[in-house]
Amino acid sequence: MELLTINNVWMMMCTALVFFMHLGFALLEIGLTRQKNTLNILFKNVFIITIGLLLYCLVGFNLMYPGEFNGFFGFAGFGLDSPLTADGALDLTYNEGYTYWTDFLFQGMFAATAATIVSGAVAERMKILPFMIFTIIYVGLIYPIAGSWKWGGGFLQTLETPFHDFAGSTLVHSVGGWAAVVAVCLLGARIGKYKDGKPQAIPGHNIPLATAGVLILWLGWFGFNGGSVLSAEPGMTSLVLVNTSLAAAAGGVVCMLVSTVRYKNLDLTMFLNGILGGLVAITAGADQMAPTDAIIIGAIGGAIIVFAVSLIDRLKLDDPVGAIAVHLICGIWGTLAVGLFGNLAGGNQFLSQLIGVGSYALFCIVSSFIIIFFLKKTIGIRVSEAEELDGLDAHEHGMEAYPNFRLNEH
Amino acid sequence: MELLTINNVWMMMCTALVFFMHLGFALLEIGLTRQKNTLNILFKNVFIITIGLLLYCLVGFNLMYPGEFNGFFGFAGFGLDSPLTADGALDLTYNEGYTYWTDFLFQGMFAATAATIVSGAVAERMKILPFMIFTIIYVGLIYPIAGSWKWGGGFLQTLETPFHDFAGSTLVHSVGGWAAVVAVCLLGARIGKYKDGKPQAIPGHNIPLATAGVLILWLGWFGFNGGSVLSAEPGMTSLVLVNTSLAAAAGGVVCMLVSTVRYKNLDLTMFLNGILGGLVAITAGADQMAPTDAIIIGAIGGAIIVFAVSLIDRLKLDDPVGAIAVHLICGIWGTLAVGLFGNLAGGNQFLSQLIGVGSYALFCIVSSFIIIFFLKKTIGIRVSEAEELDGLDAHEHGMEAYPNFRLNEH
Amino acid sequence: MELLTINNVWMMMCTALVFFMHLGFALLEIGLTRQKNTLNILFKNVFIITIGLLLYCLVGFNLMYPGEFNGFFGFAGFGLDSPLTADGALDLTYNEGYTYWTDFLFQGMFAATAATIVSGAVAERMKILPFMIFTIIYVGLIYPIAGSWKWGGGFLQTLETPFHDFAGSTLVHSVGGWAAVVAVCLLGARIGKYKDGKPQAIPGHNIPLATAGVLILWLGWFGFNGGSVLSAEPGMTSLVLVNTSLAAAAGGVVCMLVSTVRYKNLDLTMFLNGILGGLVAITAGADQMAPTDAIIIGAIGGAIIVFAVSLIDRLKLDDPVGAIAVHLICGIWGTLAVGLFGNLAGGNQFLSQLIGVGSYALFCIVSSFIIIFFLKKTIGIRVSEAEELDGLDAHEHGMEAYPNFRLNEH
Repeated sequence: MELLTINNVWMMMCTALVFFMHLGFALLEIGLTRQKNTLNILFKNVFIITIGLLLYCLVGFNLMYPGEFNGFFGFAGFGLDSPLTADGALDLTYNEGYTYWTDFLFQGMFAATAATIVSGAVAERMKILPFMIFTIIYVGLIYPIAGSWKWGGGFLQTLETPFHDFAGSTLVHSVGGWAAVVAVCLLGARIGKYKDGKPQAIPGHNIPLATAGVLILWLGWFGFNGGSVLSAEPGMTSLVLVNTSLAAAAGGVVCMLVSTVRYKNLDLTMFLNGILGGLVAITAGADQMAPTDAIIIGAIGGAIIVFAVSLIDRLKLDDPVGAIAVHLICGIWGTLAVGLFGNLAGGNQFLSQLIGVGSYALFCIVSSFIIIFFLKKTIGIRVSEAEELDGLDAHEHGMEAYPNFRLNEH
Repeated sequence: MELLTINNVWMMMCTALVFFMHLGFALLEIGLTRQKNTLNILFKNVFIITIGLLLYCLVGFNLMYPGEFNGFFGFAGFGLDSPLTADGALDLTYNEGYTYWTDFLFQGMFAATAATIVSGAVAERMKILPFMIFTIIYVGLIYPIAGSWKWGGGFLQTLETPFHDFAGSTLVHSVGGWAAVVAVCLLGARIGKYKDGKPQAIPGHNIPLATAGVLILWLGWFGFNGGSVLSAEPGMTSLVLVNTSLAAAAGGVVCMLVSTVRYKNLDLTMFLNGILGGLVAITAGADQMAPTDAIIIGAIGGAIIVFAVSLIDRLKLDDPVGAIAVHLICGIWGTLAVGLFGNLAGGNQFLSQLIGVGSYALFCIVSSFIIIFFLKKTIGIRVSEAEELDGLDAHEHGMEAYPNFRLNEH
Repeated sequence: MELLTINNVWMMMCTALVFFMHLGFALLEIGLTRQKNTLNILFKNVFIITIGLLLYCLVGFNLMYPGEFNGFFGFAGFGLDSPLTADGALDLTYNEGYTYWTDFLFQGMFAATAATIVSGAVAERMKILPFMIFTIIYVGLIYPIAGSWKWGGGFLQTLETPFHDFAGSTLVHSVGGWAAVVAVCLLGARIGKYKDGKPQAIPGHNIPLATAGVLILWLGWFGFNGGSVLSAEPGMTSLVLVNTSLAAAAGGVVCMLVSTVRYKNLDLTMFLNGILGGLVAITAGADQMAPTDAIIIGAIGGAIIVFAVSLIDRLKLDDPVGAIAVHLICGIWGTLAVGLFGNLAGGNQFLSQLIGVGSYALFCIVSSFIIIFFLKKTIGIRVSEAEELDGLDAHEHGMEAYPNFRLNEH
């Protein structure tokens, strides 16, 4: 009883921290984009967390954890139905690490994250209604089905050498990242992003809020990775936090150094994206690494960011906040790194990691393509040129983000 | 001993989260008001939390928890006096859920909240000095006396069917809300709010900060409701968090939908106020509801917001941040809902809830009227027209919120 | 085992809160300085926390806790090396309050703080490269060596009446504060700060973010002081939190009152600095005081701020954010207060406190002088006049903090 209570306290605090990540994402995304689209991005982020929780309650939780199933798709029924003891009380033997309610809420906070990643990539040009429809389908159905393959005990968990993804480099970050790629391809680049075929920088409007967003995300990652231990076991939770923070630090510093050497300026947004790259990269294996491994994995993640951002730009994938580099590329790197570093390193594990990465790539690309292509052909996914130039805030919401802002006369 | 330690850790973390709500309130209030009054609002919020804690230490805690008393008013003496064992150490059998110190600090963080609600409603036109005096009396005397009636074991607790208010839909939110109504009536509307009798929209100046404020408040509510369990009992705490988050989500989504149908725009500030309406509404009964009840209560709270905001506007109650709709109307709704949904539902309970709502209405309206009317007749409560037009920052504080803000030339 | 798990959960949450203080510092510093140097300050703060953790991993932790040593300097070797049991698992008997990993991470989050204090004081005119070099040496070597003298069991701990510094009024805040004094002396004042020998106010650009920074710092102090108990022992942790919050509240209110009497305006930035002064002052003795002592210590800390800020200004030490008054002067006050109030009060203790304050003064002044003087004579520490006038963002980073900010036309 004492141990359940402790574990559950830890898991509840981690749940709160993962919830707080949604503020981090919102601030990062608005900070790196133009002011005229700020309200639209905030609206999307608030929509994602609210509708995400309701959908996870309605169908998601029971799609992701269907109990015994065929390994690909199972559904334990609509709504929540807490396990009860004979006398009708909540069954506290459900799990040694947390109650049924904590389990639902912690996983529910994760669920919305995948759509948030897409939100950043499609910013400044996607219509709000199709984005909301996409969010409902992707958070309500695609994410939990994908999640069931591993965390729900599905076929990737029952491989001879099980695919390993501790806290979701692939299950959360790449699942969002693949959809981001598809959406960006179907949407096209923002007006003015490419001039004579060359990518142009479109600076954001509020770097202080972007910085706050990244530090809030790092804080939230204490819960994202720390809670993924699924108990408060002292050795494992504290190792995971050390690995998480060291990978973030190494990712940031290395990304800043590489970017400085390459571009000859001390670029804060690169520094910030490097931190996120390190965090995403360590997420798959934070429980299997020694701190030195974590530093190396994070550092490589940070270096990858510099080249990935520039590559994606040249591929004419216009991703205003760098979501594809951070969440998809570093997510893949971190997932594969489980086969190269730490306790599980080995050829069979590396193969399983490849199978996992490939399975999610296939499923997410196909499913998000179907959804977004259908939306494109029916209600359309892109705002008009006039709306894009004026900003989405005025047209989609009839409001502005800083409607009363004035400069001082003196 | 282990159990006390766990419980106390949970309560301390919840205390920290409730403290953090004061940042949420501050950001929400400045975000929804004009730039020229920003510093004034921040000053008030910082004043409320600091003076609130000191007053709660000096008199509030012992007014609210006087021990045995007549059920209406009791006072256990000035200052703090921790319970000691025979050998002079802190008595750790004081309570199984927390120590004496934790008890004081958790309750102290609550105390200041009531005044914060008023701060938002009177923004942009109330003089700072009378507001400070009001805060001192309301936080130091009125709130703890009101609180003693239920949480201190007073007459509402000893009703045959005890009045139920789990975490303060009435004891905190309506107590603030009633004073807000009285203050707004005595103050009058802001210049320019009504034109030919019709309410005019006066947009705020920083919606990103308002959004951050609401997400910080939601985070803080994990502590506000989660800590009101007064222990870390795993089943109850986790159920409360699930109910809290689902009510917030349902309130937000429903408010956004109703508002969109009615006004044909996707209004982010309505979405945000809907979330708060859901949170306030579930606060009275978060411990007595199943998640489905919580979703319904939150959803109705969210729908109420749309109509309440518009009604209050038409009643010529000028409430710049929607505090009355959110904290008073949804507070009443949530309190009554305890008699309609969940474990306690029934006629007698509904009657007790009505008695509770009515008792607090009477006491808070009368006491806040006396205080504010007296202030109005003596030192005056409203700034001059010139001060209001220039903004309170310049006149009351001689400073500005963004004194050095510049636009880029290029 | 249960007890270790609880203690470790508490320490991990405190670690997260101390990490979050770095966002508080960043927002406070940019809020109180001019917009044109915002990006530079954010860059420095992100650099400090990332490089700080890596350095603490590489050398700091083993310099600060060298095991048995001569009391002045010891080093247990490069990198981390967790204590293992015979069968190779993490040794959970390392400490009853936390695991080896938690110990490292909690202390690592502290380490970066000292450099952050300097960052604020040298803002708006120091070159970024020498600041980065200074940070590396000061966080990597000076801070942990200084820390070993007391927390590592060094000569200040083995005095007959041991020097007492609970959570770092001296070990963290003054260590940063002394370096700030030295750096400011060697740098000189900002252009325009003194006109005909009289200090001129140079207002910051974003008081809302500065306010958010201070409230985040207060929140973080729950972890800074609460975690310094090094376990979750319920009586001590909760007393420490009560003392911390009451000292913050008293510091803020008294500073605001004194400043209002003296300058006839209700100055929010003074209020905020008073809160920080109270927090720094209680940090040395939060575990040894009754709440009344804490209120007095905090109140005096708040009063000191008003006079110290003005004195430092007149001494021509140009400290844009008040770091020297807050961290150094209140740090000294709080350290000496341990000899005057609470359980340890007495002549011998006061003497030991003086010895401690003096030892750190000597070591920090000399070491930071050597580092910064050397940097000044080699690569130079101050930006050119043109760069200072244009702002460091444009020259050092080639970017701006709000590059796309626009006012609305209507």
